[in-house]
Amino acid sequence: MTKNTKVNAAILIIGNEILSGRTKDTNTGSIALWLNSIGVKVMEVRVIPDVERTIIDTVNYLRKDNDYVFTTGGIGPTHDDITAQSISKAFNLEYEIHKEAFKILEAYYKVGEFNEGRQKMVWMPRKANLILNPTSGAPGFNVENVFCLPGVPSILRSMLGGLKNKIVGGDPILSHTISLKTVESEIASSLANVQNNNKDLEIGSYPFFQAGKLGVSIVIRSEDQIKINKCKSEILEFVDEKKIEIVIR
Amino acid sequence: MTKNTKVNAAILIIGNEILSGRTKDTNTGSIALWLNSIGVKVMEVRVIPDVERTIIDTVNYLRKDNDYVFTTGGIGPTHDDITAQSISKAFNLEYEIHKEAFKILEAYYKVGEFNEGRQKMVWMPRKANLILNPTSGAPGFNVENVFCLPGVPSILRSMLGGLKNKIVGGDPILSHTISLKTVESEIASSLANVQNNNKDLEIGSYPFFQAGKLGVSIVIRSEDQIKINKCKSEILEFVDEKKIEIVIR
Repeated sequence: MTKNTKVNAAILIIGNEILSGRTKDTNTGSIALWLNSIGVKVMEVRVIPDVERTIIDTVNYLRKDNDYVFTTGGIGPTHDDITAQSISKAFNLEYEIHKEAFKILEAYYKVGEFNEGRQKMVWMPRKANLILNPTSGAPGFNVENVFCLPGVPSILRSMLGGLKNKIVGGDPILSHTISLKTVESEIASSLANVQNNNKDLEIGSYPFFQAGKLGVSIVIRSEDQIKINKCKSEILEFVDEKKIEIVIR
Repeated sequence: MTKNTKVNAAILIIGNEILSGRTKDTNTGSIALWLNSIGVKVMEVRVIPDVERTIIDTVNYLRKDNDYVFTTGGIGPTHDDITAQSISKAFNLEYEIHKEAFKILEAYYKVGEFNEGRQKMVWMPRKANLILNPTSGAPGFNVENVFCLPGVPSILRSMLGGLKNKIVGGDPILSHTISLKTVESEIASSLANVQNNNKDLEIGSYPFFQAGKLGVSIVIRSEDQIKINKCKSEILEFVDEKKIEIVIR
């Protein structure tokens, strides 16, 4: 892919444990922050159960609609880990032993410990490219624009760095936050005017509670620092007029 | 809706701040745990940006495919809060002042404080039913099977209790967790056998780290306690044979 100013991604969280509320997803945040830093914008996140048909259909939808898709979960050794076989079916590829992954895990484990359960983790779609795992050995993989990562957050985070050369981002997405001691209703109409004057910027307003006091963070996001600066000045102008206390400018 | 053994829901998280990674979503967990307790199973979660067309299309898709849809975010006073107007368009209803909501907020705020920004929060789809907000006044609402809640987690949680009479769940979804001092690969094939013998149960396997040691939690989920007990015995049988240490049975 050649360098493009707008590069989009979707994140697909695969796992019953998130849908049941048992486990809180933190992988979305890790992946999204990292993607922003390399100029890729997350347009959509979906959480789906460990159901083969659902995984196949969702991957096939998202991969056509986005430059990149990142899946998390379902690449471990147990019966509920069905991501690799589902991705094989989504792309109509053989599900087979990946020789390079086999060698990596054979070397990683002590003699006799590379058992049947662990060997399941080297079954992948034919011609999958490996994503190395510096934490626990078992690699993730990608097929075309679909990148499959594990569900365990610490392992996932350790694998993102190794992906950098495989992802071609656009201009980095910059943001600026202004935090105010006020409530949203106080600034709503002025902020709406600023958004109207700056239609191609993303301006978000987020209430917060700090030490028992209410506040609002205004977040400006764009690839263009000059536009962010202009927007920031317009916001600080009405904040000044309204004599609102600034926590972070 | 009459009592049904299987009742499904989808959760729709509306907000750029989740997609950018700035804010971690915790509302999915709160809603899912509460829904499980009243017999509603979450089948899908989606996170989408503050874009009207995307909200309309996603709501219209999810509400046909699920018994209930819960949205979070976008019902505050600022320009980026567009959930109520989007839901109006999704249902082809007028977007107008909700008289009861107006009275509630008029009484909630001190004289003179019910300003233009706050008045935006009483604009809703025609004939929306209110969801009361014991924390900060401004109500959520539902239209048919779509329930719109705020994005601030503490406020959202305080509103769930008041929803109980509006949601007709099925049999509560029960779960049992067995935690073991082992690794997934050690139990993978035995657990796959148990899953094969108990096809209508959901059996999940989740690695954990505790005090520097690896472990695995096996979670059995079903509406049927007797089936859970049978499955539990089968798991404890192979755990015993393999002489694996049990942390929680």
